[in-house]
Amino acid sequence: MLNTLKKNYLLLLISFLFFATQAQVQKIEPPYWYAGMKNSSLQIVFYGPNIAENEVTAPTGIPILEVSKTENPNYLFVTIDTKGLLPQEIVFSFSKNKKKQFTQHYLLKGRRANSALRESYSSADVMYLLMPDRFANGNPKNDNDKSVTEKANRTAENGRHGGDIEGIIQHLNYIQELGATTVWCTPLCVDNDPRGSYHGYGQSDVYQIDPRYGTNDDYLRLSNELHKKDMKLVMDYVTNHWGAEHWMIKDLPTYNWIHQFPGYAQTNYRMTTQFDPNASKIDARLCADGWFVQSMPDLNQSHPLVLTYLTQNAIWWIESANLDGFRVDTYSYNDKKSIAKWTKAITDEYPNFNIVGEVWMQDQAQMAYWQKDSKIAAIQNYNSYLPSVMDFTFMDAAAKVFDENEASWNNGLIKLYENFANDFLYPNPNNLLTFVENHDTERFNEIYKKDFKKYAMAMSILATVRGIPQLYYGSEVGMAGDKSKGDGAIRQDFPGGWQTDTNNAFTQTGRTQEQQLFFDFSSKLFQWRKTNEAVHFGKTTHYLPIDNVYVYFRYTNKKTVMVIVNNNLLSKKIKTDRFHENILGFKNGKEILTGTVFNVENEITVAPQTAMIFELEK
Amino acid sequence: MLNTLKKNYLLLLISFLFFATQAQVQKIEPPYWYAGMKNSSLQIVFYGPNIAENEVTAPTGIPILEVSKTENPNYLFVTIDTKGLLPQEIVFSFSKNKKKQFTQHYLLKGRRANSALRESYSSADVMYLLMPDRFANGNPKNDNDKSVTEKANRTAENGRHGGDIEGIIQHLNYIQELGATTVWCTPLCVDNDPRGSYHGYGQSDVYQIDPRYGTNDDYLRLSNELHKKDMKLVMDYVTNHWGAEHWMIKDLPTYNWIHQFPGYAQTNYRMTTQFDPNASKIDARLCADGWFVQSMPDLNQSHPLVLTYLTQNAIWWIESANLDGFRVDTYSYNDKKSIAKWTKAITDEYPNFNIVGEVWMQDQAQMAYWQKDSKIAAIQNYNSYLPSVMDFTFMDAAAKVFDENEASWNNGLIKLYENFANDFLYPNPNNLLTFVENHDTERFNEIYKKDFKKYAMAMSILATVRGIPQLYYGSEVGMAGDKSKGDGAIRQDFPGGWQTDTNNAFTQTGRTQEQQLFFDFSSKLFQWRKTNEAVHFGKTTHYLPIDNVYVYFRYTNKKTVMVIVNNNLLSKKIKTDRFHENILGFKNGKEILTGTVFNVENEITVAPQTAMIFELEK
Repeated sequence: MLNTLKKNYLLLLISFLFFATQAQVQKIEPPYWYAGMKNSSLQIVFYGPNIAENEVTAPTGIPILEVSKTENPNYLFVTIDTKGLLPQEIVFSFSKNKKKQFTQHYLLKGRRANSALRESYSSADVMYLLMPDRFANGNPKNDNDKSVTEKANRTAENGRHGGDIEGIIQHLNYIQELGATTVWCTPLCVDNDPRGSYHGYGQSDVYQIDPRYGTNDDYLRLSNELHKKDMKLVMDYVTNHWGAEHWMIKDLPTYNWIHQFPGYAQTNYRMTTQFDPNASKIDARLCADGWFVQSMPDLNQSHPLVLTYLTQNAIWWIESANLDGFRVDTYSYNDKKSIAKWTKAITDEYPNFNIVGEVWMQDQAQMAYWQKDSKIAAIQNYNSYLPSVMDFTFMDAAAKVFDENEASWNNGLIKLYENFANDFLYPNPNNLLTFVENHDTERFNEIYKKDFKKYAMAMSILATVRGIPQLYYGSEVGMAGDKSKGDGAIRQDFPGGWQTDTNNAFTQTGRTQEQQLFFDFSSKLFQWRKTNEAVHFGKTTHYLPIDNVYVYFRYTNKKTVMVIVNNNLLSKKIKTDRFHENILGFKNGKEILTGTVFNVENEITVAPQTAMIFELEK
Repeated sequence: MLNTLKKNYLLLLISFLFFATQAQVQKIEPPYWYAGMKNSSLQIVFYGPNIAENEVTAPTGIPILEVSKTENPNYLFVTIDTKGLLPQEIVFSFSKNKKKQFTQHYLLKGRRANSALRESYSSADVMYLLMPDRFANGNPKNDNDKSVTEKANRTAENGRHGGDIEGIIQHLNYIQELGATTVWCTPLCVDNDPRGSYHGYGQSDVYQIDPRYGTNDDYLRLSNELHKKDMKLVMDYVTNHWGAEHWMIKDLPTYNWIHQFPGYAQTNYRMTTQFDPNASKIDARLCADGWFVQSMPDLNQSHPLVLTYLTQNAIWWIESANLDGFRVDTYSYNDKKSIAKWTKAITDEYPNFNIVGEVWMQDQAQMAYWQKDSKIAAIQNYNSYLPSVMDFTFMDAAAKVFDENEASWNNGLIKLYENFANDFLYPNPNNLLTFVENHDTERFNEIYKKDFKKYAMAMSILATVRGIPQLYYGSEVGMAGDKSKGDGAIRQDFPGGWQTDTNNAFTQTGRTQEQQLFFDFSSKLFQWRKTNEAVHFGKTTHYLPIDNVYVYFRYTNKKTVMVIVNNNLLSKKIKTDRFHENILGFKNGKEILTGTVFNVENEITVAPQTAMIFELEK
């Protein structure tokens, strides 16, 4: 009886403390953390009404390094040192006028074995970019959720269509069958914009998966399922801006948490201002600090509290979802110095972790500026520490050359050759993300009107040149889409992702003949790519395109791959003596799609608008 | 009597020795040299039938460092050390089987005072490029010469028209009146090609001015006359190739004096192969070692004898013609390492000497590669030591923007802005040669159909941006010319350069109304440019073109120049508050062409398609 009373009393006490805490602390971020991080500092945001009126203490042995209060009394930023701490629950005490008000439990979890040295994606991988809302609706029950404003409406081009994490998990076999090894999903965190939230770049809670996609546990499950298949998960991270609905934006910790002019001013998008020493200060400021749209306040990464918040959030996702890499949105629009610190902090913590930044420029020197250890950036004593950038000039060339069947000095395959001729500008050309399209560009099959020959040439090149090939969902079954009709047109639903879809391109039986043509080729090509180290990490020798025929070699000490691209409307007989630097000692070439063996010592005939890939044999 | 006999005997002896020498030595190059050079080594080429059968000795105190014999017995390359020698005549003795055969006198001249530290052209100058054959025929008597094959034929587009050095000297006042301070003549050395020799790039004797232009003394006279006017002379130097008629080509000192495949193979013109680490060796070799045309054998600068020959020849011209600078033809087609040695040797000898190399590429990183101390070239441990390169991307932009009156993201004045945005890639952007045309390109007034407004905008920009403005003869009086009709069309005779010309654009009275419109504007602009140090050496701040209006500032501590270019078909009212970084503290702007003073504190109205240049005043 006494025991029961004690028990009830304890329960009551716990409940009371719980509710007291709830009333005081409405948000804690990061919601938990990890013991044993290399950087042992941890900045915890406590959010609640007038919480800053409190003094905060931690148990003995847990040093509080700093308590930052801002002009907004609802925030307390408490930085502790976790050095040497084991996984445990830390109890913070909050007191006012030396009178204890409440406590707050905070969990330090243990890390996975080998977490810091996790491997990441590389040029041995093929990355599959998908938009979760538009890929597959695996769980129709989560299409609408009370906690978020925008409800499902598949008929609206820019509406929520219901795709989700479950849908991705259900089709991992498909992605694997295609030959992709890594999945990049556009952002999955909550985006509570009332309109157009499906793209996810206007995040309103960066510690929470959007309920319309699933839960944080679902995201971890996606990660685990990928890992079971020896595949990788890449998160699309957004440092530059949040959605206007983010809870911190609605109650700003400090006025300069975001860039204010005051309030909104639009970026001028001219990224050259970020390194042009002659640029006016106002232009440079507008580029980096201006907002993309009114619904996406531009974060001030130069504020130390913001920068630490974003760094920890990124690390938290790596640990909690067991990630294999990042893609960082609008990388070059961030505060330059701060984003370098952010990137360095992450790669200091995970030295093998790959991060590709979106630096959408049309000039290779300008793009190379942003890759880690760039000698061009070093001219200005800058180092982004960003391991990988996107090869946008490759994309620009790929969008033109296959229509340029009549070559001239500047036209035809020379455009691709010239893209690679500047590779020495990049500190690490093999860690470029190569692609012919993404979720922001015209679809490749739209540009070339679903011309399979052109698709096949482009993919053959993508699969065999240096860099990490990135595919965009749906093109492998011939999907097209005209960006001039709006972003929705290039982000259409994958056929078969919804139960009511009559055409299911995920399965061979469900595919149209055209879809099968595209998929069969793509799958053969990228499955083969997995097997050949020469196209992963080999050296390159390329030969000046002559007569719109481009020949190049990828090779290691063990393997040599020869690629011949004939971009003519007629077949071409290629004499191979010109390639003796690479071909000497080889007798035959096994064409990788058909397995047919050709003698390569004298000449090879290549069909019109065809790329042939050979594994050379003695 | 005895004395007379002695005298006669001596005369006979001298004559005998003279003729003996003549028979043995047909050519000596350099024909003379200078005492007191920093690099005291001097390689003398002795050429004569079987001259290599001889041993050569020099007087005591003149060390012979090396005697090189090649497979051609008609050459002896003798390298002596001139260290510490005073100007003097050196007598070389030639002997066979220890028996003296003949002697050869060789002159070491004294140098001009301060020769090594001569000043050169810079961004304070305006360079006037002219083709001597097409500028003015000052001496009709030298139009034809027995010693050279091609005779004058003014009716032939690619024939010799008779222009000469005398013609240039007679019109230096005109060039000075225009505001140019430096004259770059295309090559003046003998070009004995039977056809098309007027351009002079196929030189047959690099120690001799072509007799159709005058003599070496005339060239020195041109130099002297320019210096009297405080103007400068730039020689067009060709290291890459000679004409097939060059005496050494007709009796090659060594097989590999030129690049042999064997004999002729054409360059592929793809200069990226010179730094692309993935380029095939055969492509790289063809680019650098292939010939431009069959009549221009490609010199092998990597041969030490060739390199020294070319270096000494260049230095010889600097000394003998008292030159102020070089322009080097097809710079990036030379052997990369060797041309760097050549350039360094010259600038080691003359540390202030400016040399601009023709590096005709379309990518700024690629062009910047070739400028001295390039950080981009340093990626490959390369340094060209070339002080200046040509801003071909500026030319490319200038050829388009003035027709782009409807601006878009990529069109209109943004193209010029973007050219300068990459200036940080150049080690020294102010030592770029800026131009809108030259003797190898479409004429500016052809592109824009003699539209004076477009010419005026372009020249206003050329006169006020960083770099060394280069003009091309005739455009200042509205000359046009369509390259698609042949090179002759862009290299027409300057009107008034020939006595029979009815239109004389050299004088105000002789000009048509249109010619006067062009000249009057040009002259006012470039005369003003001489006076303003801010456009010579000032810093630049430029503002993103908005609505096709480009505004930039050049400034020193003392002077500020504001330039507004309105590329619209309508006048524009420009609010100046956006420019407060540069305009703050200034009240008025004096427009430099009219002298009209404008208040610049609030707004300025700029007429359609007009550039306004203001000197700001407090």
